[in-house]
Amino acid sequence: MSGETLVFISPSDPPKAWESAFRSLAPDIGFTVSRGDVTPGTRADWAVVWKPPAGALARLAGLKCIFSLGAGVDHVLVDPDFPTGIPLARVVDPYLTAGMSEYVVLHVLAHHRGLMRNLADQAAGRWAPFAAKRADETRVGILGLGELGLDAARKLKPFGYRLAGWSQTRKDEPGVESFAGTDELAAFLARTDILVCLLPLTPATRGILNSATFALLPEGAAVINAARGGHLIESDLIAALDEGHMAGATLDVFQIEPLPGDSPIWPHPKIMVTPHMAALTDPRSTAITMVESMARIRAGGRPLYEVDLRRGY
Amino acid sequence: MSGETLVFISPSDPPKAWESAFRSLAPDIGFTVSRGDVTPGTRADWAVVWKPPAGALARLAGLKCIFSLGAGVDHVLVDPDFPTGIPLARVVDPYLTAGMSEYVVLHVLAHHRGLMRNLADQAAGRWAPFAAKRADETRVGILGLGELGLDAARKLKPFGYRLAGWSQTRKDEPGVESFAGTDELAAFLARTDILVCLLPLTPATRGILNSATFALLPEGAAVINAARGGHLIESDLIAALDEGHMAGATLDVFQIEPLPGDSPIWPHPKIMVTPHMAALTDPRSTAITMVESMARIRAGGRPLYEVDLRRGY
Repeated sequence: MSGETLVFISPSDPPKAWESAFRSLAPDIGFTVSRGDVTPGTRADWAVVWKPPAGALARLAGLKCIFSLGAGVDHVLVDPDFPTGIPLARVVDPYLTAGMSEYVVLHVLAHHRGLMRNLADQAAGRWAPFAAKRADETRVGILGLGELGLDAARKLKPFGYRLAGWSQTRKDEPGVESFAGTDELAAFLARTDILVCLLPLTPATRGILNSATFALLPEGAAVINAARGGHLIESDLIAALDEGHMAGATLDVFQIEPLPGDSPIWPHPKIMVTPHMAALTDPRSTAITMVESMARIRAGGRPLYEVDLRRGY
Repeated sequence: MSGETLVFISPSDPPKAWESAFRSLAPDIGFTVSRGDVTPGTRADWAVVWKPPAGALARLAGLKCIFSLGAGVDHVLVDPDFPTGIPLARVVDPYLTAGMSEYVVLHVLAHHRGLMRNLADQAAGRWAPFAAKRADETRVGILGLGELGLDAARKLKPFGYRLAGWSQTRKDEPGVESFAGTDELAAFLARTDILVCLLPLTPATRGILNSATFALLPEGAAVINAARGGHLIESDLIAALDEGHMAGATLDVFQIEPLPGDSPIWPHPKIMVTPHMAALTDPRSTAITMVESMARIRAGGRPLYEVDLRRGY
């Protein structure tokens, strides 16, 4: 450990909390913050990164593992010079998972119970009660049944929603109807009133939320995208909302982040916008997992939550 | 049953769904809708009521039971001529309970996760992520641990909130710290970041949400009132929000309903308003319970969920 260095690269995560977590958990590791403009051959044992500049990781020498600062790794794999021989680990953390499920349940309930209608009525000073459908008449569908999707499904269950999930491989979760693979996507969408996207962003899932997808949803459906901006064709969503086929949307992630000031999404009356904060990586708990992975690698093993580069997650 | 009559009085519940529920469950009972302006001595076996005009119930002859259309009965007991010799039943219904818990969890999550801040940022076109506290660092306190309060607590539990409840008598619910009686109210408030009111409205609870209560809450607390408008001194809430001591509020019920157009609550940036729709009584399921109570009374028994008039719930 002595003499090891860690390089921290992120345009948005404040390094302070990470530095203090590593100082307390692994004081012998030198913690350096970089914007990614490193001289080729700069020595670093560990890289902890969010959206590193293209080529930055390839310029580091002696790298034993790359740790993504997010649950997804699409932000790293877009780098054409990504060093594929080095293990890449993603974040799996109980607090990140908990935060995502809070966000999903909050926004499923908000769409189910008509919160945006309430807020529009409030803005107009209009007293206009209405009955929501019962939860057991409301069909929630989750795209992606990994760590995040399964936890969200489990936290939606006590409300009595009719739950389904769509994933690459069939899942066996009680109370959650499982749809698997491209062949079953249409049937999954046709039974979904509130669609939640928690997929990893891969070539297979990029743009999956598009006009064709929305057309398969029943009239009045809502969509919640808490995965990646690349999953959604934003203009297709706006068209589906403006035509009245879809009733509402919650977006935490966008094609361009921060969402540009002139985006028609900001003022859209049927969209709730949150600034990529559905689930934040907690340095206090996540650094523990990273330090454990470092110990495993030093002992000749593999990191926890290693990404399969062929699948992309 | 043959020849029995039921009088339905409500200024706001549409009678159609109730009539059709009773026609299918108890076709022999004559269903009549009244505004409450009945001639003294009008015969009615059963009264199903929401906010009946003062004196209306006393003018009915032959009444065997009065059924409240809501979980609370304060709207009936304000009648100075309420016929205290006749059994009064309130609504306890799994769908009403479920609807209330949806509302409570939605608004607890909304305050915990800063949804109003997100929406204000969206309105300003401002990209401003922030970290919410962890759920296990967030203290939710429920005023009233009856049918509704206990169910809400159970549905909040999976999120990991630090839960407590306050009630007249001590409760033994795992994971929910129990505070009981007037003596323990201050300690309950001092540990509560998000306060949820689900109390029955009685002389003992009227105005319980006031300046003194709010002063005991920690800085930055939020309040959700889904019980009765009479629980809250509205001007005290506005003062606590405007002084910055409290961070936000969700109100479903008001001193005057519909909320008057000139109320400062409508435009208040820290208050979410919903028009008394947190939990609606479902005629399909509630009429079943009422018909069961009628059968019990015909057999010489008491109705289900009979109100103790001394307690007021």
